Amino acid sequence: MRFIKKKSKKVGLPPGTLVHIGERRTEKTKISIIDYDKTHLLEKDAISVEECFPYKDKSTVTWINIDGIHQADVVEKIGKHFDLHPLVLEDIMNTGQRSKIEDFRDYIFIVLKIPYYDDKENEVKIEQVSLILGKNFVISLMEIEKDVVNPIKVRLRNEESHLRKTGADYLTYSLIDVIVDNYFGIMENIEEKIGNIEEELLSESTSKTLQAIHNIKREMIFMSKSVWPLREIINNLERGESSLIKEFTKIYFRDAYDHTIQIIESIETFRDMITGMMDIYLSSVNNKMNEIMMFLTIIGTIFIPLTFITGIYGMNFKYMPELGWFWGYPAVLLIMFGIVVLMLFFFRRKKWL
Amino acid sequence: MRFIKKKSKKVGLPPGTLVHIGERRTEKTKISIIDYDKTHLLEKDAISVEECFPYKDKSTVTWINIDGIHQADVVEKIGKHFDLHPLVLEDIMNTGQRSKIEDFRDYIFIVLKIPYYDDKENEVKIEQVSLILGKNFVISLMEIEKDVVNPIKVRLRNEESHLRKTGADYLTYSLIDVIVDNYFGIMENIEEKIGNIEEELLSESTSKTLQAIHNIKREMIFMSKSVWPLREIINNLERGESSLIKEFTKIYFRDAYDHTIQIIESIETFRDMITGMMDIYLSSVNNKMNEIMMFLTIIGTIFIPLTFITGIYGMNFKYMPELGWFWGYPAVLLIMFGIVVLMLFFFRRKKWL
Amino acid sequence: MRFIKKKSKKVGLPPGTLVHIGERRTEKTKISIIDYDKTHLLEKDAISVEECFPYKDKSTVTWINIDGIHQADVVEKIGKHFDLHPLVLEDIMNTGQRSKIEDFRDYIFIVLKIPYYDDKENEVKIEQVSLILGKNFVISLMEIEKDVVNPIKVRLRNEESHLRKTGADYLTYSLIDVIVDNYFGIMENIEEKIGNIEEELLSESTSKTLQAIHNIKREMIFMSKSVWPLREIINNLERGESSLIKEFTKIYFRDAYDHTIQIIESIETFRDMITGMMDIYLSSVNNKMNEIMMFLTIIGTIFIPLTFITGIYGMNFKYMPELGWFWGYPAVLLIMFGIVVLMLFFFRRKKWL
Amino acid sequence: MRFIKKKSKKVGLPPGTLVHIGERRTEKTKISIIDYDKTHLLEKDAISVEECFPYKDKSTVTWINIDGIHQADVVEKIGKHFDLHPLVLEDIMNTGQRSKIEDFRDYIFIVLKIPYYDDKENEVKIEQVSLILGKNFVISLMEIEKDVVNPIKVRLRNEESHLRKTGADYLTYSLIDVIVDNYFGIMENIEEKIGNIEEELLSESTSKTLQAIHNIKREMIFMSKSVWPLREIINNLERGESSLIKEFTKIYFRDAYDHTIQIIESIETFRDMITGMMDIYLSSVNNKMNEIMMFLTIIGTIFIPLTFITGIYGMNFKYMPELGWFWGYPAVLLIMFGIVVLMLFFFRRKKWL
Amino acid sequence: MRFIKKKSKKVGLPPGTLVHIGERRTEKTKISIIDYDKTHLLEKDAISVEECFPYKDKSTVTWINIDGIHQADVVEKIGKHFDLHPLVLEDIMNTGQRSKIEDFRDYIFIVLKIPYYDDKENEVKIEQVSLILGKNFVISLMEIEKDVVNPIKVRLRNEESHLRKTGADYLTYSLIDVIVDNYFGIMENIEEKIGNIEEELLSESTSKTLQAIHNIKREMIFMSKSVWPLREIINNLERGESSLIKEFTKIYFRDAYDHTIQIIESIETFRDMITGMMDIYLSSVNNKMNEIMMFLTIIGTIFIPLTFITGIYGMNFKYMPELGWFWGYPAVLLIMFGIVVLMLFFFRRKKWL
Repeated sequence: MRFIKKKSKKVGLPPGTLVHIGERRTEKTKISIIDYDKTHLLEKDAISVEECFPYKDKSTVTWINIDGIHQADVVEKIGKHFDLHPLVLEDIMNTGQRSKIEDFRDYIFIVLKIPYYDDKENEVKIEQVSLILGKNFVISLMEIEKDVVNPIKVRLRNEESHLRKTGADYLTYSLIDVIVDNYFGIMENIEEKIGNIEEELLSESTSKTLQAIHNIKREMIFMSKSVWPLREIINNLERGESSLIKEFTKIYFRDAYDHTIQIIESIETFRDMITGMMDIYLSSVNNKMNEIMMFLTIIGTIFIPLTFITGIYGMNFKYMPELGWFWGYPAVLLIMFGIVVLMLFFFRRKKWL
Repeated sequence: MRFIKKKSKKVGLPPGTLVHIGERRTEKTKISIIDYDKTHLLEKDAISVEECFPYKDKSTVTWINIDGIHQADVVEKIGKHFDLHPLVLEDIMNTGQRSKIEDFRDYIFIVLKIPYYDDKENEVKIEQVSLILGKNFVISLMEIEKDVVNPIKVRLRNEESHLRKTGADYLTYSLIDVIVDNYFGIMENIEEKIGNIEEELLSESTSKTLQAIHNIKREMIFMSKSVWPLREIINNLERGESSLIKEFTKIYFRDAYDHTIQIIESIETFRDMITGMMDIYLSSVNNKMNEIMMFLTIIGTIFIPLTFITGIYGMNFKYMPELGWFWGYPAVLLIMFGIVVLMLFFFRRKKWL
Repeated sequence: MRFIKKKSKKVGLPPGTLVHIGERRTEKTKISIIDYDKTHLLEKDAISVEECFPYKDKSTVTWINIDGIHQADVVEKIGKHFDLHPLVLEDIMNTGQRSKIEDFRDYIFIVLKIPYYDDKENEVKIEQVSLILGKNFVISLMEIEKDVVNPIKVRLRNEESHLRKTGADYLTYSLIDVIVDNYFGIMENIEEKIGNIEEELLSESTSKTLQAIHNIKREMIFMSKSVWPLREIINNLERGESSLIKEFTKIYFRDAYDHTIQIIESIETFRDMITGMMDIYLSSVNNKMNEIMMFLTIIGTIFIPLTFITGIYGMNFKYMPELGWFWGYPAVLLIMFGIVVLMLFFFRRKKWL
Repeated sequence: MRFIKKKSKKVGLPPGTLVHIGERRTEKTKISIIDYDKTHLLEKDAISVEECFPYKDKSTVTWINIDGIHQADVVEKIGKHFDLHPLVLEDIMNTGQRSKIEDFRDYIFIVLKIPYYDDKENEVKIEQVSLILGKNFVISLMEIEKDVVNPIKVRLRNEESHLRKTGADYLTYSLIDVIVDNYFGIMENIEEKIGNIEEELLSESTSKTLQAIHNIKREMIFMSKSVWPLREIINNLERGESSLIKEFTKIYFRDAYDHTIQIIESIETFRDMITGMMDIYLSSVNNKMNEIMMFLTIIGTIFIPLTFITGIYGMNFKYMPELGWFWGYPAVLLIMFGIVVLMLFFFRRKKWL
Repeated sequence: MRFIKKKSKKVGLPPGTLVHIGERRTEKTKISIIDYDKTHLLEKDAISVEECFPYKDKSTVTWINIDGIHQADVVEKIGKHFDLHPLVLEDIMNTGQRSKIEDFRDYIFIVLKIPYYDDKENEVKIEQVSLILGKNFVISLMEIEKDVVNPIKVRLRNEESHLRKTGADYLTYSLIDVIVDNYFGIMENIEEKIGNIEEELLSESTSKTLQAIHNIKREMIFMSKSVWPLREIINNLERGESSLIKEFTKIYFRDAYDHTIQIIESIETFRDMITGMMDIYLSSVNNKMNEIMMFLTIIGTIFIPLTFITGIYGMNFKYMPELGWFWGYPAVLLIMFGIVVLMLFFFRRKKWL
């Protein structure tokens, strides 16, 4: 979970320079295309950049999906053919980019973050998705190959689906909606973890619990940082003036907007809960510690007067009548026993034991 | 008190798909209808969906109340007949929906939350209510059957009541007003609990007190999360441009708005109070602990010099004149008694005992 | 200091129902009237509701003051004769009402809170005052009889006073100004208490200090909750569009507005100060505790080696040459004395004693 | 540092009554006047109120400076001659007034606070300055005589100075600029104190450090309370619509505005730093305490097993072979020495010593 | 890291007086100039002020870079020739100036802060940069000579670069972009430090860790204070109405704006993380302390009953049968051993050891 991606490589370079910022990838960039309207659907996988070009001006809706953004030449060719601004290309390749939307009149450029749970490293990670919505085409660029967009492909193949009857803007909505759903998945995961920690708190909290609370806190910061700009983006799409978004689709964006609000509110709620859990943890650790110390101190306090009494009869005075009594020893033992009983009774009544 | 409802079932499904999200219900959906104007009133219970349809275009006011939203077919039929947007139907069935209002010109769609106190599980729960306000009809959809709306039914049956002389918008107001009153009920309940905790704090605070404070804190988060959108909704209705809300009714919505503000302010106040109680709790637990430890330590400190003295006269030196004195033993006992008195006096003057 | 007044009695009742919410009063409602213009003044006490009616349309300014709002019939008659909205009457009788202002074009309805110091229960309490400003009349409704408005009566009787030369709006301003002055009184009282606590903190802080801090904190919450809406109300009057407020009077409302700002700022300041005092309190309690424990522990630590030495010479070995020395005993005593001196010196140099 | 000035004297008095609220002064009010334009300058000290009157309508710029505002008759005469609103006069005499600006079209009324460091009481204090900017005159009213405005007098006497070439608005700016500079002085003073405390924290923090932190905190609250309204006032002058402020002068007010922003930001920064220092203080006090307690406990722990061993050989069993050994005593001493060495080694390796 | 620069020297001086506020410099001011258009480039170093003057009205773009702002005569000459407002000159020389932008129609004046890491003192420092953007010229004034602008010089020398084809506004953008990149550098540095501290926290946290956390906190305050106004400035440039900024360049400023937002968000994130780390630090220090104290107390508690037993058989009663038993001594030793084993077992099962 790094918050700032190394931009050092780029210092001093002129803006618009295409340098991939992010983890190094070795896989080749994969390009697939789906071209469709109400009646027809054409699907091609693993094609070259040039094969996409003819679809630019077709009246059918074209969805170009590119997995892998580390190859500057691919991005550059796409940019040149679809008349994209050099800063757009730079932003696509810089995975440290903040989520944002920019309206270039002929196309809308959107940068989004998909959070996903990395089972190997057991933490939430984020991939960048760039979307370019033109008049009849949508270009989506993913950092790595993900099966996130598969359900949309499936729906597209179904001739009856809503997607087939609508335009590129509805396709964009569907892509964003899928991403928003991913956020819900992560939130459910986090809520589950919070539940686990709460149970731990009630039974047996260790320093691992603190670590777990701290980790969730970080994930929340992470989520919060991604979801706020997402909200702005969708709000912008819903209210925006762009002619690329039809009135019909805006109602769907409003729905997606409500979902992001819900995620944000849950994050706020979780934060409050985590703060509360932290308080309980600290207070319970403290209590446990105190109880132990009190227990030990009480043990000590019980023996102190007894040891004192043994001390008295260990003195070597010549004239100590008790020492000569026959029942002296058992009497002292009895008295000591009595003191112990009294003290235990006293401590128990005070509820210290 | 879950904050996020499982949406996993819906991931990948196209928007508008009717899937019930919420606790599984087995009861059948119940539909009742009240059709009224100044002079007439018609009331029918347990009817089928189709029986509602004729009332759609009647000039009298029609209130269709549906208890149970888990039957997709019922919701779908209602949606089709009353021309509701597919997203509206989806929102009705998704009980994890955030409270909201949407104006579709022909009808206003409102999603609300009713909080109620679940005596069995001893915690605040929430049910979702959806309202659809049309020109001459109101459709209310409840998660489960609740007697919350009964007083309105009673009032409707009274020919003299205000409700009978006004339209569907006033009926909507009355329903919302009843829901707002429910919030007041919960707040009174919470205030009572806070009062109890405060008394506990002054007398005998245990770790249960902490748990209780924590529980109220969670309930406050819960309430806060529901009431903020409620405020927005009522504000929207009061100021809204919709022709479905008459000027006459807006003054009543303003009143309801004031009530939500009052609830919000009380929540803020309670939060401040709870924070203060938390402080007092921690400080009092700490004080109690400290006092005990101090008491035990003082006991120890009193015996330490005494034991030291017994140690001295327990030494085996040949030439220790005191050991041979006749009054040696009683003298040492007296000295030790004197030391104890002095120390007790000292500790008491220092107010440590 | 309850924050939510029992509204349970009203649950289910239609809006506009007149039910008194507040503490039960047994005194009869008292009505007094002052009718005046530049030259004349008429004052009547303890009159019936009906006697007020003729003054409604007189061109002179009429001030109807009603002490006691628990009699629904009185409020209702006033309401009917002066054409007040049913919700206004409901708000007048509900003392749990939030402070607010509503402009009904023909009259302005204002609900305010007067804080006062209840010497018996030694805490700040609040009474509700409702003001109705009409074209030529002001109706003020108080929860109980208070001498708060007396200075205004005195001023009115003076023919030279500003009040006599101005209209009903200036009278309203004067009433509000008097209420704002009451807030200043409470704030002075609180500042004094804060001063006392600070002195206590420097000399001798006990758990009573904590309680006092906590009480002031609650009073601050209380004050804050009342004064914020007051500010809004006065701001509204100053900027408002109502023709009932003359331009001339607005400058006076601006002055009153400045005063409420001052109160709010003082509250903020006091809050910061109280937080600081809390910190000092906790830190000083902690320090005191630590010092005591350290003192006791040092006492113990001094005796531990001494007792060890006595233990050595209490051993029963046959061959312990020291035991046979003539100066053995005094030498050991001297050594022990030396150890005590060394340790005291060490602890003092370390500034632990 | 009182935050609320006693207004009790004024309760019940009609607004506009001139009562001096503030510390009682016995000095007589001093009035001085400077009348100037590009070529001429006339300076008179210690004149009567009446002598000021002829300058009101002169085309030259007139600056009337009044030191001492406790004489109601002086303020009243000024008010009458310069047509000031009664509330303005009231505000001038009430030193508990919040800083503010009011535009009465013919003149602008400004109330400001000058903070200064009172060396005697070693704390920051505040004096009130009222400015009245008319077409060709500026009236400044100070609580007591201060040399704050002297530099401006000096500059005025210089014929080449910018002041001589500009109007009353630039004179007003100069006065305010001097006041803002005073704030910077106080801030430098506070920064120095913070620096001192930080050094103390690193070397030797005592409870005096805590008191010092607390005092600075209070001074910050004090400063913050004065500087925020100052910012509003200057902003108002910069953007204001008043014809009394020329376009030329506004650029200077913008500069003064930037300075107040800088002061506000420094206050924020200092607050953050003080919070950090508080944390460090508490943590270091705690650490010191813990280290001492640990040291003492370790001392005790070392002697406990030794004392136990002496106890063993102090037992009176008949058959204890060791007691008869010749080397028994030295052997035990050696063993005990070994134990001490082992324990010291153990504690040191654990870094507890 | 001083937050307020000494302004004392300036108190009382008229605004517009040129006094250098900042660290004293002894180096001479260095002036260099680059004059270029698409085809030509002229570069001169170490020239006199007067040599710059002819370039003012040339149609080519002229960049005048001045290193060192402590020489009032240089700044004054520049100001006179380029018609700069006296307040601009004052701001240039006052390094305690807040970052800001001012539009004087003919030129835009920008004050910025470059943070850089001072390796010697091991802390973040800040230099002030002033930019004046005119129609065909950019004047940049640096506090000291820095190689920050070198990459831009290099790019300018390349005839193919974007810079050569665009105007003075794009040059200004490039300068600001380079400064923003510096902020990223510092942020990366801080993130690294945070990472180190986190590792320390998990392994071995000492009081140095606390100091490190505190230092980073201060750096964050420092960064935050510089970057917020930077954001405002760039936002202003992007949206501004000035004709000096071409539409073409605004898109680049929007990009820079996004970068500042990213920095601000990272600062927020880091702050949250630091707060969390502080919590963990305090909790871990506390835990370690507690564990040690518990260990020591347990040692003590184990020996207390043993010593008591030795005390019993150290008593001098005549009739103590055990003392005469042959196996008495070994039996007692065995019993004591048994007690130790039992207690260790008990403590271990309780997980206290």
